[in-house]
Amino acid sequence: MRMYDIIAKKRDGGKLSQQEIQFAVNGYVAGQVPDYQMSALLMAIYLRGMDAQETAILTDCMARSGDQVDLSAIPGVKVDKHSTGGVGDKTTLVVAPLVAACGAKIAKMSGRGLGHTGGTIDKMESIPGMRTSLDQRAFFEQVEKIGLAVIGQTGNLAPADKKMYALRDVTATVGCIPLIASSIMSKKLAAGADAILLDVKTGNGAFMKTLEDSIQLAKAMVEIGEHNGRRTAALVTDMDTPLGFAVGNSLEVAEVVRTLKGEGPQDLTSVCLDLAAGLLELSGLAADFPAAMAMAKKALESGVGLAKLRQMVAAQGGDVAVIDNPDRFEQAKICQPVYVPKDGYICRTDTEQIGIAAVQLGAGREKKEDAVDFSAGIVLCKKAGDWVHKGDTLAWLYTSSEEKALAARQTFLSALTFGDTPPAAMPLVLAKVTKDGIERFDQ
Amino acid sequence: MRMYDIIAKKRDGGKLSQQEIQFAVNGYVAGQVPDYQMSALLMAIYLRGMDAQETAILTDCMARSGDQVDLSAIPGVKVDKHSTGGVGDKTTLVVAPLVAACGAKIAKMSGRGLGHTGGTIDKMESIPGMRTSLDQRAFFEQVEKIGLAVIGQTGNLAPADKKMYALRDVTATVGCIPLIASSIMSKKLAAGADAILLDVKTGNGAFMKTLEDSIQLAKAMVEIGEHNGRRTAALVTDMDTPLGFAVGNSLEVAEVVRTLKGEGPQDLTSVCLDLAAGLLELSGLAADFPAAMAMAKKALESGVGLAKLRQMVAAQGGDVAVIDNPDRFEQAKICQPVYVPKDGYICRTDTEQIGIAAVQLGAGREKKEDAVDFSAGIVLCKKAGDWVHKGDTLAWLYTSSEEKALAARQTFLSALTFGDTPPAAMPLVLAKVTKDGIERFDQ
Repeated sequence: MRMYDIIAKKRDGGKLSQQEIQFAVNGYVAGQVPDYQMSALLMAIYLRGMDAQETAILTDCMARSGDQVDLSAIPGVKVDKHSTGGVGDKTTLVVAPLVAACGAKIAKMSGRGLGHTGGTIDKMESIPGMRTSLDQRAFFEQVEKIGLAVIGQTGNLAPADKKMYALRDVTATVGCIPLIASSIMSKKLAAGADAILLDVKTGNGAFMKTLEDSIQLAKAMVEIGEHNGRRTAALVTDMDTPLGFAVGNSLEVAEVVRTLKGEGPQDLTSVCLDLAAGLLELSGLAADFPAAMAMAKKALESGVGLAKLRQMVAAQGGDVAVIDNPDRFEQAKICQPVYVPKDGYICRTDTEQIGIAAVQLGAGREKKEDAVDFSAGIVLCKKAGDWVHKGDTLAWLYTSSEEKALAARQTFLSALTFGDTPPAAMPLVLAKVTKDGIERFDQ
Repeated sequence: MRMYDIIAKKRDGGKLSQQEIQFAVNGYVAGQVPDYQMSALLMAIYLRGMDAQETAILTDCMARSGDQVDLSAIPGVKVDKHSTGGVGDKTTLVVAPLVAACGAKIAKMSGRGLGHTGGTIDKMESIPGMRTSLDQRAFFEQVEKIGLAVIGQTGNLAPADKKMYALRDVTATVGCIPLIASSIMSKKLAAGADAILLDVKTGNGAFMKTLEDSIQLAKAMVEIGEHNGRRTAALVTDMDTPLGFAVGNSLEVAEVVRTLKGEGPQDLTSVCLDLAAGLLELSGLAADFPAAMAMAKKALESGVGLAKLRQMVAAQGGDVAVIDNPDRFEQAKICQPVYVPKDGYICRTDTEQIGIAAVQLGAGREKKEDAVDFSAGIVLCKKAGDWVHKGDTLAWLYTSSEEKALAARQTFLSALTFGDTPPAAMPLVLAKVTKDGIERFDQ
C-alpha cells in the first residue's frame, strides 16, 4: 500500500477503505507518512468529502492512536457530554451534577478556554483549591463514590488527532465537517463513555455559524458514535447570544449555583434541563424524554443537583464556601457599568465579539500560555430582544485595570445593534439529532 | 500576506493574484513556505483549477526563479520546439535542421528519456563523440555560425518548477493541466526563444491519453506563451502508435538520416514537415502556412536539411561517418525477428508497452541513474492498420542479451491486438492550436 495511491483515490472522489485510512493515520503518527502527503490528503478530503463510514473509521483509528480510558470497572451507565464551545456556556457544571444526582455516572474530561470561547476547567479552577488534575485511580474512585468527576484531559488521548489538527490548522483544512466531527469524537471515544450527548452550538458566537452546517456536524458526530457502539445524540442549541447573563469564570460559577437553586436565567435553565433530560434518556435511566425531563426537573427543584455539585467541589479539594455563597469569590478590582447608548430594541448581539471583550477583560486567553483572571468578565443586564432606554445599565464589566476596561467597553458596545424592531424569536434548542433522524424546532 | 490565506482562497475556488502566486512560489523556493503548505495548495489547485491568467503568472514566476537564457545577442528569429514525449519521437532531429536550413535560429535545450519515452539528448549521444553539453559561449557561437545547436539543459533553469514537480510527484498532483502546462512552459520561457511550437502527443503512448485533454493542454500552453510575449502555437499529434518504424537511440538517428534524404517513413516525414512548416510560419520567415510548407519541403528535397544536421554533428564533435552511412553505427550484439502470430489486421498498438519493451532491451532507463544501450531498440516492419500473415516478420529486436530479448518479446507481443477489421484511419495531426483558436482535423 502506498500513501500516493490513497491520496490519488480521495482526490478522484473515491471511498477510502479501512486499511487505507489505517495506513494513512498510523503511518502519519509513526512518522512514516510525511506532513506534505498528509496535508495533500486532508485537502483532498476537504474538497471531496468522506461518507459516514469513512468518517467513523477515521475517528476510530484516531481514538485508538493513544491511551483509551476503560470505564468498565465503574458500575452503571457512564455518560459524557460535549459542547462545541460558546460564550457563557457553563452548562456542564449544571448538567453533570443533575444527571449524576439521577444515577448516571460521569467521568468527564473537559478543556480550557481558547480564543473567544471559555472552558469548563478554567471555570472550575476559579473555585479556590479545586483540583482539576487527578490520577486515574483517584478519578475512578471519585466517580464510583459520588457518581461525578470533571477533570482536565489526562494521558495521551488521540495523539493522531492532535498531530493532524496541528497540520490542518496551518493548511486551511480545519473547516470541514467530517474532519471536525472525527477530531471531536476521537477524543470522546477514547474517553470511554457508553452514552454521549453533544451540544452543537450554532450562530454568530459558535464555531458553526449556520444552522444547516451545525445540523450536518451533529449528524456526522452522531453517526460516528453509533457506528462505534456508543449511544449518541446531539442537540443543536442557540449561540446567537451568550447563554445566561454571566461571561467569565467565577461569574459563571456563581450563575451555575443560582441555576441549580432554581434562580438562574431562563435560557440557561431551559437549555440545561434539555441537555440533562437528553442525557438521561440516552443513558436508559429514563424510559422516554418526558420521563427524563421530569427526573431532571425534580433534581433541580429538590436541590439534589446543587448538593451533587457541592459534593464534587469538596471531593476535588475546592472551597465549598463559594458554592454556599458565591459572594465569597474573590472580587474583581474594577467593576464598571456600561450604559445603553440609545433607546430601542437590542436587535443583534455579535456573540463572538462579546467573547473577545471578555478575553480583553482577562477572562480568557488569546494564546495557550496566557494566564486567566478568574474574577474578570461581563455580566449582562439586558439581552437581545429586550427593549432598552438610553442610560439603562446594559452590563457590568469586571477586570483588573482601567486600560482593559476601556478596550473591552469598545468591543462590547460594537457587538450590539439597536433598532426599532425586536429580532425574530427563535427556540433555544433548534434541532435534535439521534440515530433515528433529525428533528427540527426552528420551523 | 500569509500562505494560509492563499491556500484557503484557492480551496474555496478563488482566483489568485499575481502577488499571491509570487508569495507562494518565491517563498517555497526560499524555504519559507514549507512542503506541507505547498502540497495543500497544489491539491487545491488540482481540484479547483486555475484560469489562463493565473497559469500564465505561475509560469512566469517559475521561469524567473532561476537562470534565464538571453538569446538577444544572436541575430534573427530564435525558435524552439517541445514535444510532450512519445515512442519513436525523433522529430527534433529532423525538424531543427530543416528550419535552421530555412534561416531560423535554434538554440535548443532538450531532455533525456525517462520511463517509456525517449529523449533527444540520448539519441544524439548515440553518435560517437557527440557533445551535448556546451558552455553558453560555445552554444551561442555555434547558433550564430550555423543557426543550430541542441544541447542538454544547462544552468539552473526554473528551479521552482523542479522543486514543485518533485513535490507533485509524491502527492498525486501531477495530472493537472494548469500545473503540467506551467511546468513545461516555465522551462521554455527561461530558455529564451521568440517563437515556440509545441508538439502535444495524444493517445495510448502519450502522457495525455485523450484528444480532449491534449487539446486543453495545448491551449493552456499556447495561452501561457502568448501571455508572456512569445509567439506560441501547438500541434496535437498522434501517439496511438510509435512514430516511424524505429524505437531506440542509434536506430532512430538512422531513421532521421533516411527521412532527411526523403526516404523516411511516411508518417514521420509528414509530421516533421507539419512541425517544420508550423515553426517557419510562427517565426515569420514564411508569409503563411502553405508558403512555410513549401519552404520545409524544399529543404528536405534539396538535401540542405540533411547537410544542416551533418554540420551540427560536426560542430558538436560527433562522428559524421554515421550520418553519411548509418550502417557504421555500432551494431547490437543480438538481433532477433519477431514473427506475426496469426493472420489479421493489426487493430491496436499499446504504444506505451512498446516503449517499455524498448526500455527492457536497454534503449531507455527506468531510473535516472540507469545507463542506456545506444544500439538497443525495436524496428517495426508492420504497424497498426496493416494486414499481416502468420509468420511474417513483425519487428526486429536489438539488444545485448537473450534474457532481455525474451522479456521484451513478451511485452512487445502483448502490446499488439490482431483482428478482422482495420482500425479507423485518423489523421497524424489531430488539431492545431494558435492564439486565434483551435482547428480540429479529427472530425
